[in-house]
Amino acid sequence: MPATVNREIVLASRPDEIPSESDFRAVESPIPSPSEGEVLVRTMWLSLDPYMRGRIRDAPSYSPPVQIGEVMVGGIVGEVIESRTPAFQAGDIVNGSLGWREYATSDGSDLRKVDRGLGPLSTALGVLGMPGMTAYFGLLDVGQPEPGDTVVVSAASGAVGQVVGQIARIMGCKVVGIAGTAQKVDYVINDLGFDYGINYKTEDVNSALSNLCPEGVDVYFDNVGGHITDAVMEHINTGARISVCGQISQYNLAEPEMAPRNMRLLITNQAKMEGFLVGKFAGNFEHARERMAGWIKSGTLRYREDVVEGIENAPRAFIGMMSGENFGKLLVKVSEE
Amino acid sequence: MPATVNREIVLASRPDEIPSESDFRAVESPIPSPSEGEVLVRTMWLSLDPYMRGRIRDAPSYSPPVQIGEVMVGGIVGEVIESRTPAFQAGDIVNGSLGWREYATSDGSDLRKVDRGLGPLSTALGVLGMPGMTAYFGLLDVGQPEPGDTVVVSAASGAVGQVVGQIARIMGCKVVGIAGTAQKVDYVINDLGFDYGINYKTEDVNSALSNLCPEGVDVYFDNVGGHITDAVMEHINTGARISVCGQISQYNLAEPEMAPRNMRLLITNQAKMEGFLVGKFAGNFEHARERMAGWIKSGTLRYREDVVEGIENAPRAFIGMMSGENFGKLLVKVSEE
Repeated sequence: MPATVNREIVLASRPDEIPSESDFRAVESPIPSPSEGEVLVRTMWLSLDPYMRGRIRDAPSYSPPVQIGEVMVGGIVGEVIESRTPAFQAGDIVNGSLGWREYATSDGSDLRKVDRGLGPLSTALGVLGMPGMTAYFGLLDVGQPEPGDTVVVSAASGAVGQVVGQIARIMGCKVVGIAGTAQKVDYVINDLGFDYGINYKTEDVNSALSNLCPEGVDVYFDNVGGHITDAVMEHINTGARISVCGQISQYNLAEPEMAPRNMRLLITNQAKMEGFLVGKFAGNFEHARERMAGWIKSGTLRYREDVVEGIENAPRAFIGMMSGENFGKLLVKVSEE
Repeated sequence: MPATVNREIVLASRPDEIPSESDFRAVESPIPSPSEGEVLVRTMWLSLDPYMRGRIRDAPSYSPPVQIGEVMVGGIVGEVIESRTPAFQAGDIVNGSLGWREYATSDGSDLRKVDRGLGPLSTALGVLGMPGMTAYFGLLDVGQPEPGDTVVVSAASGAVGQVVGQIARIMGCKVVGIAGTAQKVDYVINDLGFDYGINYKTEDVNSALSNLCPEGVDVYFDNVGGHITDAVMEHINTGARISVCGQISQYNLAEPEMAPRNMRLLITNQAKMEGFLVGKFAGNFEHARERMAGWIKSGTLRYREDVVEGIENAPRAFIGMMSGENFGKLLVKVSEE
């Protein structure tokens, strides 16, 4: 019997600090019918990403926030199961931002067909998707590493960090990853080929960098902000580039954390700190995706996924991600491929 | 009777916070004789600049600190009164970093001949010297303004700020200067042609920027850091460039000031913050100097100097500069031209 119910996760209340499961609510509705010009998509994979924390905060940002009662935003990979537009056919695999739900209609303007030949479908949300593009362009275009440079990346085993470190390795850089468990540190060194790892929960990052990088840091890819970033800043070299991708340490704070001002370090080291959103590089995604798919096929680029089953478990997994409970790219398997 | 005594100002003690006059000491010694290969220079003008505060702090920086008992560092313009090297002749006017003293010898490696035709000799320490070069390259190369951009500059009537704002005006930008007295604000608007000014001691910078720049800020040239910079950051546009030249608000603090973290603003606005030292652009100084001398001659670029007489008054003037007591480029007239 085909499914008739569409389960969706909506924002129930706006958390000031750490979100709780009660800030989200599962609702059921009939599976929608596509109008003329639309497709109906069955979600297979939902991506959970740190940026979503910003999207449920009612503060000025690059996009308006999710409203109370609205479906949570999120990227998905799914199958077109009904099409009323010539642009798509039933059976097409698509990637788009259709939210935390099992079925969605779309006019297709925000959908991209996924090439099954590039890799497993879930990679369209990870290493070959938004996080992978973020790593690729945030490292290469913003960080501008050169062979022999020392590159430090925080949240090193996460969806973005794991790719950043490996591309830096491919570029001929010395790579240091910062992560929050011994298992994650072991993984980035032994599975991904980083040169060194630092467990920020058990080691002093500043001292560890003194030991591991006596030559200083040329590129810092910042996913976390906060005290970890303060520590890395003490080690930057002349002309260093800090690629500011995320600040996950700050996202659950109702008020900004107070910290010692350290902008003089930018002057004395003639260093650059640049924030970016991956959409800036959208015109070059296809080229990057093909290049990275080639690295995956040759075994040069690896990736790790952390899969949770069932849309109903998305809130708990998302909340856990904010404190580093995931290990690798966090995905919700919403339905079978 | 020709002078025989050389008066010098040495660092007497290392201030933790606001320097006092007792941190400096005047010492007298015979006027030195140049050795073979050296010149003897009589200082006419001594430049006092904010960077000197960093040079008397015993902390890692781009140069080693002045040691206790050593002559204070500083740029001068003077006359070669005796030469034992073919590279210079008596009567040459030179610019170099010979320190807070009336006479100095030099092997000439750090001296530059000053072209009297470019302007008054004191300009070699101001608008056509290090502060002018700092303004020119820090704005054009680091800030990268485009016609129509909104440019905000702090310490707007100072040696660097006054030049930054005028070059931005020449570039066709809308210019807002931030300064600490009504007189300074009046000066940058009515004498230098800035569009607007904000008195940070009597106005709320954040509100003032909301009123004056509803279109947002594209380039911020930061001479001061601290709360003023925090306020400007709330107004940056997508793709904004923050050229970090100085942090004078922080230089007299024994411990870094605590402030709310705001790096997320770099991400959401895809903005770049870059620190620089003017020496990076030394290869292009001559071109910039000629261009700026042309603007001065045509009346397009103006400058204001704040002149103190006598080397013995350098410490008091320097200390006053840290709290904005000077009005324009601060110079000590050490001897007649």
